Amino acid sequence: MDTFFKAKSIAIIGASRNPNKVGHVILKNLLESDYRGKLYPVNPNTSSIVNIKCYRSVLSIKDNIEMAVVAVPAEISLKAVEECGKKGIKYVILVSAGFSEIGKDDLEKKLLNIVRKYKINLIGPNVLGVLDCYSNLDTLFLPRLRLNRPKPGGISFICQSGAVGSATLDLVAREGYGFAKFVSYGNALSINETDLIEYLGNDRETKVICLYVEGIKDGKRFMEVCKKVSRKKPIIAIKGGITEAGSRATLSHTASLAGSSEIYKAAFRQSGIIWADSLEDLFDYARVLEKCIKPKGKRVQVITNGGGYGILSADALELNSLELALMLDKTKNGLKRVFPPLVIVGNPIDLIGDADTKRYDISINACLNDMNIDILFVVVLYQTPLVTSDVVDVIKEAYDSRKKPIFIVSTGGDFTEVHKKNLEEHGVPCFTFPDRAARSIKVLCDYYLKN
Amino acid sequence: MDTFFKAKSIAIIGASRNPNKVGHVILKNLLESDYRGKLYPVNPNTSSIVNIKCYRSVLSIKDNIEMAVVAVPAEISLKAVEECGKKGIKYVILVSAGFSEIGKDDLEKKLLNIVRKYKINLIGPNVLGVLDCYSNLDTLFLPRLRLNRPKPGGISFICQSGAVGSATLDLVAREGYGFAKFVSYGNALSINETDLIEYLGNDRETKVICLYVEGIKDGKRFMEVCKKVSRKKPIIAIKGGITEAGSRATLSHTASLAGSSEIYKAAFRQSGIIWADSLEDLFDYARVLEKCIKPKGKRVQVITNGGGYGILSADALELNSLELALMLDKTKNGLKRVFPPLVIVGNPIDLIGDADTKRYDISINACLNDMNIDILFVVVLYQTPLVTSDVVDVIKEAYDSRKKPIFIVSTGGDFTEVHKKNLEEHGVPCFTFPDRAARSIKVLCDYYLKN
Repeated sequence: MDTFFKAKSIAIIGASRNPNKVGHVILKNLLESDYRGKLYPVNPNTSSIVNIKCYRSVLSIKDNIEMAVVAVPAEISLKAVEECGKKGIKYVILVSAGFSEIGKDDLEKKLLNIVRKYKINLIGPNVLGVLDCYSNLDTLFLPRLRLNRPKPGGISFICQSGAVGSATLDLVAREGYGFAKFVSYGNALSINETDLIEYLGNDRETKVICLYVEGIKDGKRFMEVCKKVSRKKPIIAIKGGITEAGSRATLSHTASLAGSSEIYKAAFRQSGIIWADSLEDLFDYARVLEKCIKPKGKRVQVITNGGGYGILSADALELNSLELALMLDKTKNGLKRVFPPLVIVGNPIDLIGDADTKRYDISINACLNDMNIDILFVVVLYQTPLVTSDVVDVIKEAYDSRKKPIFIVSTGGDFTEVHKKNLEEHGVPCFTFPDRAARSIKVLCDYYLKN
Repeated sequence: MDTFFKAKSIAIIGASRNPNKVGHVILKNLLESDYRGKLYPVNPNTSSIVNIKCYRSVLSIKDNIEMAVVAVPAEISLKAVEECGKKGIKYVILVSAGFSEIGKDDLEKKLLNIVRKYKINLIGPNVLGVLDCYSNLDTLFLPRLRLNRPKPGGISFICQSGAVGSATLDLVAREGYGFAKFVSYGNALSINETDLIEYLGNDRETKVICLYVEGIKDGKRFMEVCKKVSRKKPIIAIKGGITEAGSRATLSHTASLAGSSEIYKAAFRQSGIIWADSLEDLFDYARVLEKCIKPKGKRVQVITNGGGYGILSADALELNSLELALMLDKTKNGLKRVFPPLVIVGNPIDLIGDADTKRYDISINACLNDMNIDILFVVVLYQTPLVTSDVVDVIKEAYDSRKKPIFIVSTGGDFTEVHKKNLEEHGVPCFTFPDRAARSIKVLCDYYLKN
């Protein structure tokens, strides 16, 4: 399966001189990226595309080809896939739509016969294909101007819907999340979600697996595989079509038979899969599970420079079944000794409006060393004048010590965003609102403290 | 009460030459803003601050003064407030902290006696004060570099916590929300949340009232006033301290006795107040209620260029008890006639990956004219090459027609954000995720269809 992500030679069947054609965009994206393999455009009607020699068919290429991307109309794609089989190409991404999702089950059946006959591993049909953020192998036929590619990292995303995949990739790239692999797997005729999860379970670049799924092909095998993989690394999933209205819509999309949300929720839970209610949650959780160390327990200490934020944070933690830590008397007395009397040393620790970096430094380090505290929840509001920019260094140092998971909440405008961005680039999970941070902490604890 | 927001002359007691002092920042912010009234710095130890004549006491000012802002330590603030009373100043904002919130109930009682004796309307103590985005009267003692001020608009925000207020103001200013008035009212010794709601209920600049509250002074009057005001304009509230942990924290913050969340929820519902679970929800709802026209019903039509997004949108709508509209046969047939066969004309309408602006134009206008549809939910994913930038003009035209509420969902990176920002500046409510849009639609329907 590695070939799909690391192939050193790719035939692009349906490559075109017309910049509006999918085959053209795929070729151009590969040329413009740092992908290092060889490219073989295939198109019977032209001899070169963007200055690269073009072949009439894969059969007229003499070199060995590891993978093919097929981007021609559905009807003629079968011939193209068959030629791949004859050429001995075992890995094919079939981008073309126009199969079972529009009722053309016959055509898909014929395709399946070809795939079986030549023992082809096929991703598709009706897909965007793959993106590998390490090898830069990229078959997404969407221009880089419109769709940012994420930087390398530990999150892999398996997505049945191309649009959900591309839109969220674009979003998370902007937010600076790091990705390993992305696969849009569409109708899942040959390679399905379970094959991909199994593969990513053993993939060293992948730390967290995210899944958007509309229908599951083989429930039993899916659950068995997920049970095994989720012991090694977290799987987080969002299910499309969990209501009647949504379910009706899946039929005409990837021809998936969606099931009741309760059945899926139960099956996912039994398989060790973390359920996400929204795309926003999916990537919140993914980022936290990628970056955070295992907590020793679920006792959380809040540190804040705004009283109201301390209250909202305490509310959010309790609503998510987390515990507010009770710090050791030693810690408490130590902090009371050094802080001015208006500072409230409890949980939350309220460093109050004139807090400076030193107060953050002292309190964060005291909490890192208090064995009654498992997780730090630090609110930094940058609106007050005495919070100087070097507070980010204090936080980074605490994060780098890898002693305890640390979460930052900062709400604000441009000045705040500069500091948040700086911390996030360092890997520190930052949130805009206390409730989102608390939900992610819950997921972190659920994953690690149950296993 | 208008004086607090439109005063034409303000004494700043505690104005200082030291740029780190609250009194200095307040004076400087007022000077740097477009506030047009007269300013009178008061400080016995200096004769001028930033080139403005400084007075020993308000009593040494000859002119009439409409309002005073007091920013001196708690102990000496009582004398300052008393001098305001003697001078005949009836509107005082007492910024200073150090009263009941740290157990100094005696001091607060003495203050109350002065306030009563001179019939002073007092906001505070322990507050940031007010911001009026129309008159630019601004007593927030936080530098503009760190805290962006929002542009003028219809949202007013009454906030017991200064930090919650300033952080969210800063955030929403960045996101381009328009504000009328902001009040941080702290310990609420004289003017409390109910007085402010009553006032804003009659304020023509205010279209929507947002509230962050920790404790309510007079529950009965609060409910009576809110019942009346919420019939005129929406009130949305978030309650700090709805858990045991949060409730403990409110005591040391604004000395509020928080109550059980169930009691508050029920009381808010009875008073016509919309409950927000998070700050994020609070401002999502506020923006939608400010911008959207009244829907005729809750039948929503989804239009999308990504199948998976159609499914997630349908799920989100059904989960929020909204109905998926069934368009008229006339509309359906009309659309089928003009669209290519792969376009799915149902609910969702899936314009598919090669959708262009024309498809959006046709489908949006067909839905605006279909009496079986009350609300439009339009997903625009900008990653695909044929969605051209002029799609924003089609959406703006539909919004400007004021025929039906229209909601836009777009997920993506930089290219997407440019278009979203453009639409938002025009007033169109845009969301990054379908579920957030659906929740706001539910609130819109709940508010208008129950009243």
